[in-house]
This record gives sequence, C-alpha cells and structure tokens, in this order.
Amino acid sequence: MTKQQELEVVAGGGLLDRRLFLQKSLTFSALAVSADVLAAVPDAERLPWSQKPGLPFSNYGNPSPYERKTIRWTMGNAAAAGNGVSWTPLQDLEGIITPSGLHFERHHNGVPQIDPAQHQLLIHGLVNQSLVFNIEDLLRYPMTSVLCFIECGGNSNAGWHSKPIETQLGYFHGMASCSEWTGIPLRLLLNEAKIKGRAKWLIAEGADASLMNVSLPLEKAMDDCILALYQNGERIRPENGYPLRLIAPGWEGVVNVKWLRRLHITNQPVMARNETSKYTELMPTGKARQFTFVMEAKSLITHPSFGHQLKKAGLYQISGLAWSGRGKIAKVEVSADGGKTWAEAQLQEPVLSKCFTRFRIPWQWNGEKAILKSRAIDETGYVQPERDVLIKSQGQHGYFHYNAIVSWEISSNGSINHVYA
Amino acid sequence: MTKQQELEVVAGGGLLDRRLFLQKSLTFSALAVSADVLAAVPDAERLPWSQKPGLPFSNYGNPSPYERKTIRWTMGNAAAAGNGVSWTPLQDLEGIITPSGLHFERHHNGVPQIDPAQHQLLIHGLVNQSLVFNIEDLLRYPMTSVLCFIECGGNSNAGWHSKPIETQLGYFHGMASCSEWTGIPLRLLLNEAKIKGRAKWLIAEGADASLMNVSLPLEKAMDDCILALYQNGERIRPENGYPLRLIAPGWEGVVNVKWLRRLHITNQPVMARNETSKYTELMPTGKARQFTFVMEAKSLITHPSFGHQLKKAGLYQISGLAWSGRGKIAKVEVSADGGKTWAEAQLQEPVLSKCFTRFRIPWQWNGEKAILKSRAIDETGYVQPERDVLIKSQGQHGYFHYNAIVSWEISSNGSINHVYA
Repeated sequence: MTKQQELEVVAGGGLLDRRLFLQKSLTFSALAVSADVLAAVPDAERLPWSQKPGLPFSNYGNPSPYERKTIRWTMGNAAAAGNGVSWTPLQDLEGIITPSGLHFERHHNGVPQIDPAQHQLLIHGLVNQSLVFNIEDLLRYPMTSVLCFIECGGNSNAGWHSKPIETQLGYFHGMASCSEWTGIPLRLLLNEAKIKGRAKWLIAEGADASLMNVSLPLEKAMDDCILALYQNGERIRPENGYPLRLIAPGWEGVVNVKWLRRLHITNQPVMARNETSKYTELMPTGKARQFTFVMEAKSLITHPSFGHQLKKAGLYQISGLAWSGRGKIAKVEVSADGGKTWAEAQLQEPVLSKCFTRFRIPWQWNGEKAILKSRAIDETGYVQPERDVLIKSQGQHGYFHYNAIVSWEISSNGSINHVYA
Repeated sequence: MTKQQELEVVAGGGLLDRRLFLQKSLTFSALAVSADVLAAVPDAERLPWSQKPGLPFSNYGNPSPYERKTIRWTMGNAAAAGNGVSWTPLQDLEGIITPSGLHFERHHNGVPQIDPAQHQLLIHGLVNQSLVFNIEDLLRYPMTSVLCFIECGGNSNAGWHSKPIETQLGYFHGMASCSEWTGIPLRLLLNEAKIKGRAKWLIAEGADASLMNVSLPLEKAMDDCILALYQNGERIRPENGYPLRLIAPGWEGVVNVKWLRRLHITNQPVMARNETSKYTELMPTGKARQFTFVMEAKSLITHPSFGHQLKKAGLYQISGLAWSGRGKIAKVEVSADGGKTWAEAQLQEPVLSKCFTRFRIPWQWNGEKAILKSRAIDETGYVQPERDVLIKSQGQHGYFHYNAIVSWEISSNGSINHVYA
C-alpha cells in the first residue's frame, strides 16, 4: 500500500463494505508502481514470444504448461487402484464453473471406456411398459440444462477429526464441483414407462465393473433429475459418466450415478452397499440415520486459504464459494475476527438454485493475526453451523455431510493455517 | 412414433407449444420400445467395461476417444501457418458453455507460450500515473466474473455469398463461443492510473509476435471491460490469451485482445491494420463504416442443422442459441414453414446479458419438406433481420457483422441443407 485510504470498516478485523470495488470513483492503491515506470516497460525485443511465430492451431486446447500444478490430486486405494477419489483444486480456481478436466472423481472400480454404440439404458420393474434405449435414441429426446454443483456426501470429512487437517483447500473440501449439465428430464422417460401406483423408489445402476447401484425416492426422480448427456457444453467425459449420467441436483454425489445402464422401479430401496455400510451413521440418540440425501448449505473462503501467502498488510479481496442443496444462497457473511462480528459479502450474479455461488468482500489486513470465517444462509433460512454446533447435533461418529464453518488463521507473517475456532 | 398424439399446433409446419415438455403429465412417444423389451436387457456379462476394472484416476481429464470428431476445425493461412482461425463445433454442443478446449481461435502469428513470470502489463499515455504490473500483482486485485459470448466480427461471413454455403453449422457460424471469464474490472486500474480529462481512447496491444493492437473507446473500458485471468474456472489457456486477456462483453472479438501487454491511453484511435484495412466496409451510401464494435442480436438453430439427419417423421425438439451484444435476449421465435408463421421458443434459464441463451421448442415433423428459421429479439427491441433486409441496409460489399436469419431446409428424406429463403 502506497498510502492509507479512508475506508469505512463494516466489521471487526478490517472487513469493508462489499460494494467498495463497485464504486467507479474508487482508487485502489497500486500494488506495483515504479517511480520510473516507463523505464520498466516490457521490452518486446527481449521477449521470445514477441519475436517468433507462436504454436500452430489445435483441434482441442489444453492449459498452459506453466499451470501444470493446477491438477486433481488423486487418492487410490492401495488394494484396488480404481477405487478412490480425486479432488478439485478449489484453491486455484475462480468463478463458479469447474472445468470438466478438474471435476472431482469418485470411482469404485476405475473409469470404464464405454463404446456408446453398445451402451443401453433399461427402465423396468413397477412399470406398465418396460423400455430400453440406446444413446442414439436418447439424443433425440427433449433436453433441458441445469447449472448445479455435485458434492460427495463424504466431502470435508476431515472436519470430523479431533485436530484440524493442515492441507490445501481442495484436498479437504474438493469433492465438490459445479458444471452445466444438459440432458433429458427423467420424468419424461418415467411417464413413458407408466409407473405403477405402488412404486416409491428407483434403483439406479452403473455399467462400470462394480455395477454401482443406489436407491432414490421416485418423488425426486419426478421432480428435477435429468439423464445428462452433456457437461459444460460437450458430451460428458468418461470419468464423469460417459455416455450417460443421472443428475440429482443438490443431492449427495453417490446418487448421481455414472455410466447409467439401468433404472429399476420398486416399492422399497435396494439396501445397497452405498446406502447401508456407507452413507449411514450413528447419531447421538443411538439410532442411525440413512438416506440423508440433501447436501446442506456450506461455504468456503477459497482465497486466501491454506497454502496461500499474504505478502504484506494491505487491501485484499476475500473470495469464496457457497452452495446449498435446498435452493439458492440468500446471503454469505464473513468474519475477520474469528466470528465476533460479521459482514455481508457481495454475491456474484447469477445466483442459481443448487449451484455454486461466488462471494467476495474487501478486507484491509492490518498485518496482525486474524481468523477468517464464512457462513452461508440459504433461501430456506438455514444457517451454516459452527463446528461445535454441528458435532453437538450429529455426534462423534460422523463421516458424511460435514458442513461446518471453516476457519483460516492468518499469522502475522502472512501464512495461513486451518484452525478450529 | 408409435402413435399419434393430440398435440396443439401453435404455428405452421408442426411447431408445438414451447411448454409442452414441461408438463409433468405428458407422455412422449417412445422412440425405442421393444415388444419383448426384457429380452433386450443389456447383458453386463457381455460388456467388457462391466467385467474388468476401468482406467486409473487422472490429474486432468479429457473427452472420450469416441468423441474424437468433436473438434475445432482449423483454417491456417498457407503463407503464414499461425494466421487463421479455428471454429467451435456448435452443431455438436448443447447448453450455453463452450468448453475451453473448443473455444474458437483467431490468431495473427500463432499461439505464444508466455511465461507468466516474465509477462508485464503497462498502462501509460494520457494518465497522471503510469503503471506496470506483473501477473502476480494482478492476481491480488479484486475480481469479478461474467458469463459472456465472444464472437468474431467476421463470423458467419459466408452469409454474404450469393449462394448459400453448404457446410456444418460450426464451420459457418462457429467463430462464436461462450465462457465464464473472471478478472479485474478495468476501471479499477484506469482509476488508479488517473486518466487525464482529454483522453478518449485506449489502445490495447498483445504480446504475440504480431503485437496485435486495436483501439477501444474509453467509455467502454470504464463500463464493463475486464482484464481476465480465468476462463471457465481455471487460468486462461494459451490460445485464449494466457496469461491475460481484455474482455469487452458484447463487442466484436478483435477488441478482446489476447496476451495483453499494453494499454495506451490516447485522445484518438491508433488506426491499426485491424480497424482500417479490416473491420471497415463500404456502405450503399458510398461511405465506409468503421468501429462497428457491437455484435447485434443473432440466433441459430443448432439442432437439427446441416449435416444432421432426421430418420423419420415424428416429434423432435428444435434447439438453438441466441445472443445479443446489447443485453439480454427477450424472445426467440421459430418458424417451420419458411417464415410464414412463427412460434415462441422456450428460453433456458439463466438468461444473461451479452451471453449465449439456449432456446428450445417442440416440433412435430410430418415427413414433408420444411424450412426452419429462428429469429432473436433482444431487450432493446432489436429484431434479427431476414437476409434480404440485411443486404438492403448494408449493401453488397459486406464481410463483417453478418447476423441475418438462417434457414435450414429439411427434405422429405430427412437431410438438411442451408438455403436462402
């Protein structure tokens, strides 16, 4: 900062009005001003890319080789390499779209390389008309698009640990990604199969070598589920379910079944591995909870976050993501004093239902220790809880659905740690 | 179609109410129903991907090998390989997002491979404080995001030909793409440089080996331009301007300068090659028009379009894209009888300013010759013109800014041609 500005503080720790950067008259103090700036002009004659022709056209583009560190971190199971996860590097991204190449993955037996000409979808069970489709048929059906997040029910589960995990944001919360999905409203196909009156559930099964299956209430299937053929404009990629994926907006990732091959209509759930031994947990009451489909509201400050480094005191923009499986984000509040006071962040338009929402707020860091937090409030009025509140209600045996407020501690040297505060 | 349905026709040629597919009670006739459907169940034991583990996790995903034909078609200049274009295959895409790997390209001397640690941005000229920034500095600045299209001013120029070009949609109109861009509002940096009162223009220059430059009115720069560092969530890719691109929402592609290295503030345009010998054209009045920045409203039926094949009479969904450089799309109308009658298409939410908008409408094709058209109306009331109207106003010397209504002729065998109708 070359000079201190007169800025109105709206909450403790230096949080400033969210509209500050929207004012046309604002002068943001230069971060890089040379007294003799013209002498520092980039010299085109010195730069190789200004002196010789660049690379030729490409049929399909890729990121810069200088961005090689922006990747999905992967974690396979030592005993079964195709069983594991990869994580979206949320700490390196901006906006709300996750590039498809960085969308998180959860696989049970690797990524099948499906020939779409051989793939079929079967709808059967409690229906008056069993149906089978190939992909070419499905591509002729009416489509709709939805921008929505997918989050694994086990995302952020390190939050249940007794000590805060010290790792980059993506490796902690990166089993959440956001894409534009386009496909067929599932209700169109179910109506065509003529569901019988006593049907209550739908069992979705994938074509991977684990034949992964889960149960979904028919009500959700008839509401907003789609059979997606496209992700972010192009056909879905293999690791995201090519050629066909079930999308259940706002519901835990496991029910968004990839490589979809079968929809079995039933009057009860199938009690598959992923809804009994997993995605089910013991509550403080002594009872277990099951079928906890909806991902509750969550928010994360993505920048600054663990692994980033503040160089000096001054003006920063805090940036983060918020989402809710119940609808739109109504508000995000940020604290720079460990939760004593809160200020409202600016929500980037468009704010969409069951979709990542980017929030931002200006912050004047005074160079002293600070604790940053964010909390999301969704359109139902639900408020993202503090960690102790979440644990009190859910108990000590949690593994899934961790959505507590995250705290980053900024030390006076500008390094950033994850703390429980 | 297994049986004819009672569907209310809303315009000639079989156009149906746009809300048809939104009705929960609708039964869409099955396109693939087997009388003995259970015998046709996909047999998991027969499919290789259900029988052996799939591929391992990847740090960065790619499209399926079965989608290898969905690529950018490239057209280099024989005399200078890095001078040319590549085209977004709009006929193969759905939704509104263009995957970054398929964003159209226009290069004058190839794609520079810029080391961001050596790249600098200079702001100078009619300012009180010249400024120079490196990329690390810029990454600390406040950011904003915008979902917007970029369209080359020369897109669709084959439309000026006396005979209709017979080629796939992307090779005709594919110099238009749509992304989420995130970066610094340009006004923040201009305010910091303290623009002098007599300044009127800004000359933007790239760091490629052509040092491509163009002029932009200061008023636009202060309005909604951003210096983008991110595209679709990740850092911009080399062919789209890595590490820094000027984004001028709604304005012709050439002013969205890639590899941005310099902003020279002046009181008059620079009269560069790309605003004199190009992007300037003779009008019927005998005068030339210049600085025709805004891309007027346009729409395209992307499916079905040239190269697609209708197999038989029946119910189809017509799908397309509309956009306007002046704001939001207010309405898209579709005709299936060559423009005699029109029906309103459904606009997919979100409908955003200066952004692709996806439209869809159901259509009952009777198997006879038909001519499909779409026309966009934007929020200013501007109506996309028929071709003869455009030519009457712009004359016979056009090359840029072709935005006339496109007509696809469906023949009785289901093949599709481009016609002037």
